[in-house]
Amino acid sequence: MSMNPTRRHWLGLTSALTAGVTACRRSAPAPEADTTPNQLGKPVSAYGERSPFEIATRSVPDTRTPETAASRTPLQDSCGILTPSSLHYERHHSGVPKIDPAQHRLMIHGLVDRPLIFTMEELRRLPSMSRIHFLECSGNSSGEWGARMGASAAQSHGLASCSEWTGVPLSLLLADCGVQKQAKWVIAEGADPCKMQRSLPIEKATEDVLVAWGQNGEALRPEQGYPLRLVVPGWEGNISVKWLRRLKAVEEPYMVRDETSHYTDLLPDGTARIFTFVMEAKSLITFPSGGQKLTSPGFYQVSGLAWSGRGRITRVEISADGGGTWRDAVLQEPRLSMAFTRFTLPWTWDGKEAVLQSRCTDESGYVQPTKDALVAVRGLNSQYHYNGIKAWKVMTNGSVTNA
Amino acid sequence: MSMNPTRRHWLGLTSALTAGVTACRRSAPAPEADTTPNQLGKPVSAYGERSPFEIATRSVPDTRTPETAASRTPLQDSCGILTPSSLHYERHHSGVPKIDPAQHRLMIHGLVDRPLIFTMEELRRLPSMSRIHFLECSGNSSGEWGARMGASAAQSHGLASCSEWTGVPLSLLLADCGVQKQAKWVIAEGADPCKMQRSLPIEKATEDVLVAWGQNGEALRPEQGYPLRLVVPGWEGNISVKWLRRLKAVEEPYMVRDETSHYTDLLPDGTARIFTFVMEAKSLITFPSGGQKLTSPGFYQVSGLAWSGRGRITRVEISADGGGTWRDAVLQEPRLSMAFTRFTLPWTWDGKEAVLQSRCTDESGYVQPTKDALVAVRGLNSQYHYNGIKAWKVMTNGSVTNA
Repeated sequence: MSMNPTRRHWLGLTSALTAGVTACRRSAPAPEADTTPNQLGKPVSAYGERSPFEIATRSVPDTRTPETAASRTPLQDSCGILTPSSLHYERHHSGVPKIDPAQHRLMIHGLVDRPLIFTMEELRRLPSMSRIHFLECSGNSSGEWGARMGASAAQSHGLASCSEWTGVPLSLLLADCGVQKQAKWVIAEGADPCKMQRSLPIEKATEDVLVAWGQNGEALRPEQGYPLRLVVPGWEGNISVKWLRRLKAVEEPYMVRDETSHYTDLLPDGTARIFTFVMEAKSLITFPSGGQKLTSPGFYQVSGLAWSGRGRITRVEISADGGGTWRDAVLQEPRLSMAFTRFTLPWTWDGKEAVLQSRCTDESGYVQPTKDALVAVRGLNSQYHYNGIKAWKVMTNGSVTNA
Repeated sequence: MSMNPTRRHWLGLTSALTAGVTACRRSAPAPEADTTPNQLGKPVSAYGERSPFEIATRSVPDTRTPETAASRTPLQDSCGILTPSSLHYERHHSGVPKIDPAQHRLMIHGLVDRPLIFTMEELRRLPSMSRIHFLECSGNSSGEWGARMGASAAQSHGLASCSEWTGVPLSLLLADCGVQKQAKWVIAEGADPCKMQRSLPIEKATEDVLVAWGQNGEALRPEQGYPLRLVVPGWEGNISVKWLRRLKAVEEPYMVRDETSHYTDLLPDGTARIFTFVMEAKSLITFPSGGQKLTSPGFYQVSGLAWSGRGRITRVEISADGGGTWRDAVLQEPRLSMAFTRFTLPWTWDGKEAVLQSRCTDESGYVQPTKDALVAVRGLNSQYHYNGIKAWKVMTNGSVTNA
């Protein structure tokens, strides 16, 4: 059975664990009284909510313009590869519109033989598919370029999340409309008040893009584009246009605001890269991470997330000595293309200062670079597309900070 | 790339779709006025909620004892393979207890060298893993044995859901406690007021069972056992004991109430099967399904879910003529062991009465049986473990009912 290799791995940990468990026991007396419930609990209910004891939230900025802002997924509290829809990161340019799906339309026009307008009911009648994919804002980890590094996993890397998305393949809609040969780009436009636009190359539009109405088994959440959005797998989040209302097939990109003044990388020589679409391979240790505290020396499971816009993650290495030596982490299945992959590694903390780092490789062979390697090529003018190796420092008192 | 076979499949549908889309267009005038938002939307927020336009809920029974009852997942509204935690089915025996995780303990004792008591903090420090698995109540689809068939997918099959579960392998905890050779069973006990108990064979306990604290990327929901539950992959849901407080290693099963008076199958000869643990292969068409309505003849995508307690789903066939002829459905990836698998098939409805059925096969070679085949072996005394082929009838007016 497929469990066996993993099971052997777990059982192999037993000796390391005994120390950890023994340490735990000393600090863990049983409660003096039986505190288990002795009265009937709550009845069954129509739509559940989380426990009032759970307090993980998106990290929301202190800003006078929260309608054009970002909130960050608390990756330090994450488990598995999925992000709860309630905690999926946000990036809005004019707030979250309230859209009645019965009134919403998607128009496909431009260089097509049959311009079409779809209702939501019509779109949901068409063939759909589901895929688990990460989305990451190109501005994620922007603080890592300079000295304003985020203090926690949320603050440094929380503009990335992973969901199961369901929708109609854009290739199918374009084929239905009879997209013409001279159409090389598709302009996608949102229904938010700023009418967010992006230019999408026809090759990608007809490869694996979804016109999505579902997220994690139910309708898209309002903050993620309800009732309809693009999901452009592996590419910077901004191009997965939310509240999608219009797709226009055209010959050339429109060079709109959010692909010129924003989301481009300014190089040391003063020129700018445009259209850095793919989010390159990146990883992050989520435990232990900034703001967390190790209660005592002993056994811990280092855990984290890796992802790549170019396909599957094939390897994650972890260093606990500031990059001197590296050990291969265990990659949890399923390892899906352009999705979060969870990695783990057993680690015994000796109580001394330690610097933890993770370095991932994807199926294209690309290895996540150091910050120095990134800066050597791209300088320090860019705010976007940072994917350097991230380090967390464990202090002798167990607290974890940026390194 | 892995998309290509699927993509060819979609593109191959184009001619069938054109008819569907054209039919759609006739019924879909554009709105007369631009109704897209023109004012700033909502700001970023700490924890999101679904759109107020979304109304899918669990199906809650009309009962005087809602603390010992079940609610059902609205599978007719499902997409992909994941169930939103808020819509995961419920089955409680004394309500949903409110448990403070700081006060909760798990005791492991009995035939072990080192009895241990764990806090939640200690458990979360141990190695964890995540797996996507279905859970299904053994009483799911019980109405299908007789004439009280559920009118909708929720009512007939909604005691089944699928989540990503995260927790500590039970094998690891048992190894740490030094489980003794004469221990052949583990008695699991919940902290709900009725102290739900089940007997779990040691072979399964050390194979793939999780002591889970995470669900779909965050803490377990209260209705699914917060802060701690067993997840026993592929087995009847009741044995995945919720609000887990105690595990006792013993020589023989305890033959507790919920494995004797409940959850056993009474056979025609008056004897009863005990310990029918595995949930055999089963499938359900979720669209079109009971209570839904086809608006017009033309193209539709038939969609549904299949799962098996014995591993992966390898095949799903669909009949649109009451079982006369069968066509292979498309199985969506990832197809995970003991998890929901989504299947689809394009279908053109000619406007006449039609009977839709799905039949799945799992990697053990087991083929989902007809109801007649089930009844021939097991008679009509049982309320549990029904996995017969389910039929939906499409009427000439497009309404869908039980067949």
